[in-house]
Amino acid sequence: MRDSIEAPTAFAELVGYRLEVWRPDYAEVTLALEAKHLNRNGGPHGGLLATLIDTACGYAGVYCTVPGNRRRALTLSLTTQFIARAEPGATLTAIGRKVGGGRHVFFSAGEIRDERGRLIARGEGAFRYRRGSEAPEGEPAR
Amino acid sequence: MRDSIEAPTAFAELVGYRLEVWRPDYAEVTLALEAKHLNRNGGPHGGLLATLIDTACGYAGVYCTVPGNRRRALTLSLTTQFIARAEPGATLTAIGRKVGGGRHVFFSAGEIRDERGRLIARGEGAFRYRRGSEAPEGEPAR
Amino acid sequence: MRDSIEAPTAFAELVGYRLEVWRPDYAEVTLALEAKHLNRNGGPHGGLLATLIDTACGYAGVYCTVPGNRRRALTLSLTTQFIARAEPGATLTAIGRKVGGGRHVFFSAGEIRDERGRLIARGEGAFRYRRGSEAPEGEPAR
Amino acid sequence: MRDSIEAPTAFAELVGYRLEVWRPDYAEVTLALEAKHLNRNGGPHGGLLATLIDTACGYAGVYCTVPGNRRRALTLSLTTQFIARAEPGATLTAIGRKVGGGRHVFFSAGEIRDERGRLIARGEGAFRYRRGSEAPEGEPAR
Repeated sequence: MRDSIEAPTAFAELVGYRLEVWRPDYAEVTLALEAKHLNRNGGPHGGLLATLIDTACGYAGVYCTVPGNRRRALTLSLTTQFIARAEPGATLTAIGRKVGGGRHVFFSAGEIRDERGRLIARGEGAFRYRRGSEAPEGEPAR
Repeated sequence: MRDSIEAPTAFAELVGYRLEVWRPDYAEVTLALEAKHLNRNGGPHGGLLATLIDTACGYAGVYCTVPGNRRRALTLSLTTQFIARAEPGATLTAIGRKVGGGRHVFFSAGEIRDERGRLIARGEGAFRYRRGSEAPEGEPAR
Repeated sequence: MRDSIEAPTAFAELVGYRLEVWRPDYAEVTLALEAKHLNRNGGPHGGLLATLIDTACGYAGVYCTVPGNRRRALTLSLTTQFIARAEPGATLTAIGRKVGGGRHVFFSAGEIRDERGRLIARGEGAFRYRRGSEAPEGEPAR
Repeated sequence: MRDSIEAPTAFAELVGYRLEVWRPDYAEVTLALEAKHLNRNGGPHGGLLATLIDTACGYAGVYCTVPGNRRRALTLSLTTQFIARAEPGATLTAIGRKVGGGRHVFFSAGEIRDERGRLIARGEGAFRYRRGSEAPEGEPAR
């Protein structure tokens, strides 16, 4: 639900992606691919795609069940596979799903598709909850 | 040598990193860490660090020995480990080294340190040369 | 179909896993987890799980449509996430799915579950076809 | 020092590798590459190389300063790049170095070379200390 979606981070504003869907263990992040995102080959920069994977995978693990509270996590490791080329003008959607973990660490899997459903990239992340963020209730945002 | 360093890509201009050193099998990319690069925890976004690793690792494999010519490659896979937190105001340097490969694929290892030499992140990439970019001489830029 | 499943490799015989299902873009590999597979903590060795991911992901890309022919590929990069602990006595099934790629390189995603369906590990691989193995028909086995 | 090197695990005995050097933040594991380690292409199985990386990287983080005590850790994530082919008869040495981390999680980087010094594979791992194993002194082995 849109009500639960928090304000964009500084890097999200710089790059232009947006958290669109956020539920327990699930997050969707979208980006309209523009000229500013391109690398020297005219395709989306690999780091841009890794950014979307990291963001969707991270949010998938820190959904907070108490309105106004917050959960925080740090990425420990991130992998990305670059499967197909997206074209400028495409709308990219990165889906992150928490796939496991325990009280302190969680794992997510992510994939990026374009608006036609073509698989553009995949990846995985391992994350660690910050102290106070282990429980689904989170803690009051500071 | 500075003469051999090409113009920044669109994504480099957006994010603010810069190719500083470029030699055969080696590249350095620097970034001044600013507020615009931060995530919801106040640290550099994981995707930013992955971007620097990808960029340094990729450039390390496409140095071109013929002035005016160019070599291109695509990232196949990228990994990043997030080892220590960098603070806003830090100057980050990502070093990429080509560590192996053949005519069509190359492998690079990268690391990011701050201006005090602290290891911030590490990573690895596998890349594929685009057709016409396999040889060190590259091909005329289009 | 069982008829299309090739003889086990030397490493498969050593470790004790088995290719059970093989179709275009899909492979399943099974292993009965025994004492010989354990690490110093009494769980399956991380390398064992990486072996199953690599095997299932690799086979998923080299199914050959012509009986008696063969396709070969090399792993370029492999990632594994270790999500839950499997217990000795468990039967592990690794599923590999080819998720994309082109004529020369392919990408697969893999996961390992125990006989109760619990997710034990996940991973991804990038692979390169050996010359002569690019087409689904493969080439005569030597 | 040889005195500090613990008994091989069950999987080490099965596969045939051996912990040869163990110091704080550093470990070396060796393997004589034999026919039993080969994949369907006649090279070392990717899972074998991942096993050596995982083992060397893991040991690098759990060296224990108190004789008779022990430290334990779990692999969270592991990556491997396959850089050059090793030939049967080669002696492989995997070196793992702990490169960072904190009280609960550590990161290691690993590489495998043959007896001529050729780089065969590289990789990285993130690990979590088991409870009681955070301090260098470890805890009494059970």
